[in-house]
Amino acid sequence: MKRYEKFADEIAGLIRSGVLAPGEKVPSVRHASRTYRVSPSTVFQAYYLLEDRGLIVARARSGYFVREHAQRPLHEPETARSQAQTTEVDVSELVFSVLDSLKDPDTVPFGSAFPSPALFPLPRLARSMAQSVRDMSPQAVITDMTAGNPNLRRQIALRYMISGVQLPMEELVISNGALEALNLCLQCVTAPGDLVAIEAPAFYATLQVLERLKLKAVEIPVHPRDGIDLEVLASRLAELPIKACWFMSSLQNPLGASMSEAKKQALYRLLKQHQVPLIEDDVYAELYFGTQPPKPVKSFDDDGLVMHCGSFSKCLAPGYRVGWVAGGRYAEAIQRLKLMTTISPSVPAQAALADYLQHGGYDRHLRKLRHALEAQQGSMLASAARHFPSSTRVTHPAGGYFLWFEFPATVDSLRLFRLALAQGISLAPGPIFSATRRFENCARLNYGHPWTAQSEQAMALLGRLIASF
Amino acid sequence: MKRYEKFADEIAGLIRSGVLAPGEKVPSVRHASRTYRVSPSTVFQAYYLLEDRGLIVARARSGYFVREHAQRPLHEPETARSQAQTTEVDVSELVFSVLDSLKDPDTVPFGSAFPSPALFPLPRLARSMAQSVRDMSPQAVITDMTAGNPNLRRQIALRYMISGVQLPMEELVISNGALEALNLCLQCVTAPGDLVAIEAPAFYATLQVLERLKLKAVEIPVHPRDGIDLEVLASRLAELPIKACWFMSSLQNPLGASMSEAKKQALYRLLKQHQVPLIEDDVYAELYFGTQPPKPVKSFDDDGLVMHCGSFSKCLAPGYRVGWVAGGRYAEAIQRLKLMTTISPSVPAQAALADYLQHGGYDRHLRKLRHALEAQQGSMLASAARHFPSSTRVTHPAGGYFLWFEFPATVDSLRLFRLALAQGISLAPGPIFSATRRFENCARLNYGHPWTAQSEQAMALLGRLIASF
Repeated sequence: MKRYEKFADEIAGLIRSGVLAPGEKVPSVRHASRTYRVSPSTVFQAYYLLEDRGLIVARARSGYFVREHAQRPLHEPETARSQAQTTEVDVSELVFSVLDSLKDPDTVPFGSAFPSPALFPLPRLARSMAQSVRDMSPQAVITDMTAGNPNLRRQIALRYMISGVQLPMEELVISNGALEALNLCLQCVTAPGDLVAIEAPAFYATLQVLERLKLKAVEIPVHPRDGIDLEVLASRLAELPIKACWFMSSLQNPLGASMSEAKKQALYRLLKQHQVPLIEDDVYAELYFGTQPPKPVKSFDDDGLVMHCGSFSKCLAPGYRVGWVAGGRYAEAIQRLKLMTTISPSVPAQAALADYLQHGGYDRHLRKLRHALEAQQGSMLASAARHFPSSTRVTHPAGGYFLWFEFPATVDSLRLFRLALAQGISLAPGPIFSATRRFENCARLNYGHPWTAQSEQAMALLGRLIASF
Repeated sequence: MKRYEKFADEIAGLIRSGVLAPGEKVPSVRHASRTYRVSPSTVFQAYYLLEDRGLIVARARSGYFVREHAQRPLHEPETARSQAQTTEVDVSELVFSVLDSLKDPDTVPFGSAFPSPALFPLPRLARSMAQSVRDMSPQAVITDMTAGNPNLRRQIALRYMISGVQLPMEELVISNGALEALNLCLQCVTAPGDLVAIEAPAFYATLQVLERLKLKAVEIPVHPRDGIDLEVLASRLAELPIKACWFMSSLQNPLGASMSEAKKQALYRLLKQHQVPLIEDDVYAELYFGTQPPKPVKSFDDDGLVMHCGSFSKCLAPGYRVGWVAGGRYAEAIQRLKLMTTISPSVPAQAALADYLQHGGYDRHLRKLRHALEAQQGSMLASAARHFPSSTRVTHPAGGYFLWFEFPATVDSLRLFRLALAQGISLAPGPIFSATRRFENCARLNYGHPWTAQSEQAMALLGRLIASF
């Protein structure tokens, strides 16, 4: 990273943490240069970069100011109340009817589950793919099926090592995206009828998987910033025979909440005490906006109790369908279950990713991606403040590409979804994120696409629809 | 196909059907040229080709003769006896212990499930891959996940059409190899505890999948040439609440049996009458040795009752992990189940196969592959006749790359497996093909690898081990 990029990140950190508030003047070039002992040209370059990212704006003859994201910033939602202790899950039909409606490419994709493919280094990946299929040994197309591409496993283990998690390579099972890994993990530690603790709200696929495997959900409320309510979890664990937990400890979908390290450690202690395995869904791990990657709960796992699932689908290569799980004590069982169902993810895709991780400039790509997402988040937050009713509440996640909106209580988000779709705008209505079909007045909006005039118009239109309720 | 290739195939057909018996003289060039109205050079070229394929041999000054595969050809095994009506399946551990032992690349791979990767057009596939990832639209990496690559679906539907099966493209679900398709199909039409009719002997993964899904097996005996015993099936269907059948109607694994068209039609009528769905595992469909592709049961399906599963893994691109199912009336349910578990096979792999099917010369490759496999089958049969006890029985399948051996009753094939492995030779012992762990004196041997002096030595060594029992 260049000096000016580093300096820009420092200023961005001050803005993020609120030290530099919206509307506030950023230190002048002369002042910054003297105070932080960097050259004026470095400061200039850094400020241009921050302007580019939408964090500061230049005012003629006055210098730079922190961008006012909102005249009247929207408040954060409150934590969902804890509810009925266990729930049969029956939400799949509803989810599919929503997903089906996202297929039209002309729709404004606020309901999408992926960032814009324009944000991914697809041409560079294509080069890695061409190179690696050309160089692949004929034997590898067969042997790499059972164990996975050895170089890919090594590259993934290296990234764990760098982020402070020591992992024997044998723990790694390469899967068809994280969703297969999550499915396999759950099957390894549960049988039909068992109880599984999940988040409320939860990623809708979690609910579908529970439904498919005939598991019952124990919903644990999630605070929009700090993640699951540990007290509720502790009492549920004490009173119910919960067989597994499935949580996203960082950048939770849909809320974007991230647990603090201390809280993650406390969660691990609690689970270890009850000997309940954790399926840690960490697919947004690389999309943090700060300077430090969030540590997973897996980093505290000294007992093989955490199955940590990751993926390249949200941060590098959607459609390649390569994910993995660091399976702890369950790794062998997971691997066997995979051999009985899909055998292996595509061998060429594994080889392409291994080559890219080694030679493609992954970290450079990730920095660019994070900055783009952070700027787009700012745009959507500002736009929401302009167009949505002031009683609307919204999350301010420190990463990812989703905002969770809580509209006034009169808003029926399933109806809003249908009305918006008729106008060419998709969104993910609240009830698909809940086994109990709560969050009727909530919706998840995707800011993973470059912000355009069309996005702004779509927000204005959504605002009018919301006001009509 | 060139004239001489066509003529060679005609002679090969005569040899295959027994019109030209082993040791018999092939028509002289002059005679053939006159009788069949082809030029002498065409006949020469055809005979060179047949010699190359190991079907005929030249004798100095005497002309060409049908190769004697065996001095004393081994007999065909008999059909397994029908057994206990339903069985809980518990064979997975045994299968894994066998599969684990196949990993050593220096082992003679008679136990392998794949043909030699040297028989596949991997460099041409690599070109298709490089081309298609370069040309792929960024949007496709996301949209192709749900519906599958549209061109691949079209190419597969075209191949169905050419082989006489009219198929709406909506019926096709692209999967992570056929194994995922088979898993999904079974989950769509069964619940834990249900009865499923399978073959005896059956592909071991069938048994593992039943075990995983807690389904009970109803074993239907398979005749080594004609496939399942329809009478047994009819009486089982009449007396038991069978929820699905999982059969390989052509080139059954491990026996290589193929049902006649009339028998396939009768099977379909029987299933339709009982309204029991058929999961038709047809992954060896392209590896027939004759001139006509075998028709699947699916070709008689006028009621959407057959889920026909295919794959490119055994005939074109192992490791790419692309298969499909023509799902009949269950297609939508299968597609949804897939979206909940793996979402999609790798999008680049789908695009590469679509490009190859359209431009790569698939039919030319398949002809070459079939000829190689047929020659290798002849070599293994001849070698077995030389080295195995004369009371050994063996199948003579009209395609695929497996032979099924029935050794003298004193042979314990699990022990044989361990003894052979210690000598660097793998094989697939009989009991892994049975829910009831029968076939103790049987084994499946793979002839999918080019026949070498090492193969011959391995057969001799196996022969000595067998004799030692």
